[in-house]
Amino acid sequence: MPEYKAPLRDMQFVLQEVFDCETHYRKLGFEDVDADTMNAIYEEAAKFVEEVVAPLNRIGDEQGCQWNDGEVTTPDGFKEAYEQYKEAGWPTLAQSEAFGGQGLPHSLQQPISEMISAANHSWSMYPGLSHGAMATLEAHGTDAQKARFLPALVEGRWTGTMCLTEPHCGTDLGLLRTKAEVNDDGSYRLNGSKIFISAGDHDLAENIVHIVLARIPGSPAGTKGISLFIVPKVNVSEEGALEERNGVHCASIEHKMGIKGSATCVLNFDDARGYLVGEVNRGLNCMFTFMNSARLGVALEGVAASEAAFQGSLTYARERLQMRALSGAKNPDGAADPIIVHPDVRRMLLTQKAFAEGGRAMSADLSLLIDTTHKSQDADERARAEAKLALLTPIAKAFLTETGMESTSHGVQVYGGHGFISEWGMEQLMRDTKISCLYEGTTGIQALDLLARKVLGSQGELLKGFMQEMGSFLGQCNADEQLAPRAAVIGQYLEELQSLTATIGKLAAANPEEIGAASVDYLMFAGYVTLGYYWLRMMATAQEKLAGGSGDTDFYTAKLQTGAFYFDRVLPRAKSHSACIQNGGDSMMAIAAEHFAF
Amino acid sequence: MPEYKAPLRDMQFVLQEVFDCETHYRKLGFEDVDADTMNAIYEEAAKFVEEVVAPLNRIGDEQGCQWNDGEVTTPDGFKEAYEQYKEAGWPTLAQSEAFGGQGLPHSLQQPISEMISAANHSWSMYPGLSHGAMATLEAHGTDAQKARFLPALVEGRWTGTMCLTEPHCGTDLGLLRTKAEVNDDGSYRLNGSKIFISAGDHDLAENIVHIVLARIPGSPAGTKGISLFIVPKVNVSEEGALEERNGVHCASIEHKMGIKGSATCVLNFDDARGYLVGEVNRGLNCMFTFMNSARLGVALEGVAASEAAFQGSLTYARERLQMRALSGAKNPDGAADPIIVHPDVRRMLLTQKAFAEGGRAMSADLSLLIDTTHKSQDADERARAEAKLALLTPIAKAFLTETGMESTSHGVQVYGGHGFISEWGMEQLMRDTKISCLYEGTTGIQALDLLARKVLGSQGELLKGFMQEMGSFLGQCNADEQLAPRAAVIGQYLEELQSLTATIGKLAAANPEEIGAASVDYLMFAGYVTLGYYWLRMMATAQEKLAGGSGDTDFYTAKLQTGAFYFDRVLPRAKSHSACIQNGGDSMMAIAAEHFAF
Repeated sequence: MPEYKAPLRDMQFVLQEVFDCETHYRKLGFEDVDADTMNAIYEEAAKFVEEVVAPLNRIGDEQGCQWNDGEVTTPDGFKEAYEQYKEAGWPTLAQSEAFGGQGLPHSLQQPISEMISAANHSWSMYPGLSHGAMATLEAHGTDAQKARFLPALVEGRWTGTMCLTEPHCGTDLGLLRTKAEVNDDGSYRLNGSKIFISAGDHDLAENIVHIVLARIPGSPAGTKGISLFIVPKVNVSEEGALEERNGVHCASIEHKMGIKGSATCVLNFDDARGYLVGEVNRGLNCMFTFMNSARLGVALEGVAASEAAFQGSLTYARERLQMRALSGAKNPDGAADPIIVHPDVRRMLLTQKAFAEGGRAMSADLSLLIDTTHKSQDADERARAEAKLALLTPIAKAFLTETGMESTSHGVQVYGGHGFISEWGMEQLMRDTKISCLYEGTTGIQALDLLARKVLGSQGELLKGFMQEMGSFLGQCNADEQLAPRAAVIGQYLEELQSLTATIGKLAAANPEEIGAASVDYLMFAGYVTLGYYWLRMMATAQEKLAGGSGDTDFYTAKLQTGAFYFDRVLPRAKSHSACIQNGGDSMMAIAAEHFAF
Repeated sequence: MPEYKAPLRDMQFVLQEVFDCETHYRKLGFEDVDADTMNAIYEEAAKFVEEVVAPLNRIGDEQGCQWNDGEVTTPDGFKEAYEQYKEAGWPTLAQSEAFGGQGLPHSLQQPISEMISAANHSWSMYPGLSHGAMATLEAHGTDAQKARFLPALVEGRWTGTMCLTEPHCGTDLGLLRTKAEVNDDGSYRLNGSKIFISAGDHDLAENIVHIVLARIPGSPAGTKGISLFIVPKVNVSEEGALEERNGVHCASIEHKMGIKGSATCVLNFDDARGYLVGEVNRGLNCMFTFMNSARLGVALEGVAASEAAFQGSLTYARERLQMRALSGAKNPDGAADPIIVHPDVRRMLLTQKAFAEGGRAMSADLSLLIDTTHKSQDADERARAEAKLALLTPIAKAFLTETGMESTSHGVQVYGGHGFISEWGMEQLMRDTKISCLYEGTTGIQALDLLARKVLGSQGELLKGFMQEMGSFLGQCNADEQLAPRAAVIGQYLEELQSLTATIGKLAAANPEEIGAASVDYLMFAGYVTLGYYWLRMMATAQEKLAGGSGDTDFYTAKLQTGAFYFDRVLPRAKSHSACIQNGGDSMMAIAAEHFAF
């Protein structure tokens, strides 16, 4: 089993050195948050994650969750670890002080989420889903609802869920059927069935607050007739005290490829008591605020997967002796050389490393933008942050999870046949990570969101804003003779991105299917180029630090070397995506559905 | 669960129409093998596979194999299916008549192997491993050894294994330690431990014939001191009768990501009686004949995986209703359109289809070459076949399994969240297929074999021969106005392949690590281009048939459409691999092993 170590040095580098979060926090009124505070928090978090959460990863996979007569039992140790997590106050970190939180910035919480996800994807789902429920309540709940439900969620005594999917509708929420009828007291009674509800039932908390999409009879068909409800597992008095069991039960849990320690529940609502959140028939709009942050949470799982796979691979590559280097023995006293001497093993390690560190930078930037949307007093600045988040969210979600998946696959390959054997832990990473390419909208759905809704839907405005930011940074790099050639490469890709966008726009005017035909290649192209931009930012910081003689030379040099690898051996993949887009969608659409097979 | 249907029409198309196997068989003296005979055999095989083997696929995954006190029990139904397989004479099909076989060509057997692998990868391992053992015995055994062991293997009463790997050596067989000491009667006693032995123990057959690599004391160190032995599980008299249990026992079986119905055994040899095969210290050379055919067998697993994933995806894409087509409703009376209308779903389906059908063509061509090496009377023709096989074996093994893996991943994506759920069967395909990228040499090892040993090691001679074949076919296409532009594209890629080869050769002269740095990108480049060549051959045949008015218009039209998709939307991936190679290996080798993480 690979032993997880939180990459604290890199987390500091990204937040504090590349993005200067201290200045950012001061501007937003978080005066007390300085580097020392952050580092102290992260060291404490790392200790908890490495010592308590990580060792449960394999147990969770082996035991899975158990369903028994409507009640779900989590794997051995999950409950105790959650208890420690709650006792230490971790759930409260970035929650509002009004409800018992510590009021720290969202971005400060994010590295801790990454650690937990990298160490134990399954366990991370229980606190993770609560974040979505809390964010939804805080944004759309009434004051009374907040007072009733938020304090226990913030404290971690209760957890939350998001109940969207039904057997016949995943992406297409307009088809949903769960019914909500109003009671005399203004509450609702819900009837229907939801599937794929993560943390839908478990034994970690006293209560579970389900946030449920349902249809009020008489509402318009489709997405405009959907409302949002709070449905607690155990009913709650207005003062927040637990009352009798509500009519929502876990009918079964799924058998899955991975994240087996996470309970994926079928929930049946039988006259379950619920409370409307937000306005009638505006449920999907309320859900969207949540969905964007949930998507960034899943993007982070991709980063975490790359990091975990990288760590596991690196340990093995340094220890496993097999064959001699092509240029002659590097470990002449041993039976063979450690496989880290072989270029192709290095290719896989550096690819994982480039995705983990680059993805961490992209995610960190996005988390700082979330702070800005929450806390900035400047409406223009908030609007700019919203715009950049809107554009980059689908890219981060799809690109970082697809590359996370690639990293875990390399992880298995580095181990050779041993990678296929469960006890080494590498195959579990692959199985656990695949879900991140599926839930909260598949890669294909993200790609449509990016191209149809964000890029073309804004007539290119969203793209233009980010292009300007990148262009201005590239301009700064031109003064540096080592960065200038890299900046020129990114500059060329940005021109290509613009021309691809124009091409697709033109094709789509004649045939809207061209948008779908181009979408995933477009997203991946944008993903590689965006990651290149973040790598360039990291390289610029590393170079500045080296030039400033700040010490830690090995760290900054390795950063430049990894960046060079990304530019030389990963970024060129964008070329294929561009070429595919340019060939248009005809060959995709020509074949009749009935002629795919004979 | 996707229901497997053998793609009989496509199998006929490839063997009979594209490669004109009837003429090929006549030339090699298989006068009786005509299309009607083949079709009758395949229909019978398809019936057996679809009705008996396929339904055991999920059971095998759920139950796995059980180890109990040294004996392995296979999942429910595996033994009965094997019994039927044996009773129907399937194991004997392509085996020598001298030992009870039917003496049919190897290439005729191959579609049946594909069917079995696509329907049930785990079950396919038991008959599959026997092929390797039989081939090794037939090529290197004495007449007495053949008479003693082959008839029961051919009949299927016994099965075989190949015992290479030890805990400390996979790729690097020079490190192996299993010891073989000669007995007074000329037999040997073996001591040591082997791991990862597929079909190493099970309950399907009366006996298991292990083919084992071991070291005779006093032999040179490294790969030049390894010999090959027959070690039966149950000792066998010279007449082939079963005697007492031999000293080889299954110490445990592995818990794995996939192929759980296939027993992957740790075998302990404790004074096990064995018989030398071939000359002392020439064991690896004997093994190589087997390894090449085993690698082609694994390549076929990749094709089978693409086919199985395609079939599963297609069924779901036609049935699942979700969202409306971007160009307007296609199923206005339904709640939504079937997802096969969406371009990105089509992209995934067509990618799977292009890999399955293209890979089938590549594998079929290679199987016909194997016939030629076995049966041709013309030494030049045999040498040409050997040369082409030597070049294409690592490409087929690595490229077709990597693309098989991609196909299974698309399979999960097409199903959305349902793809992650075990009962749908798609995630099992991903887990089962990953092993094909690992065993019989990982993708990285195949890439080194291709570039270092085959291409550069032959001073480009092997490549030149295949280039000439392709060049001559491209010339024929130039006369056709629809094929000519596709041929021109392949022609350009072939020029690029030559120039990449020259570039790497030059770089490698200064630094041999450049070979490893380029190897996987080089293999993938060659893979995409080679598959393009096979697609062009299929397109030429389809066009010829359409022009000849032979009917079956829909089939041939779909073939041309799928080919067009491959050229437009898959083949351009070669560009990225080329660009990566051209950037050289410096960025891979620069970083010190101790600086990968801090």
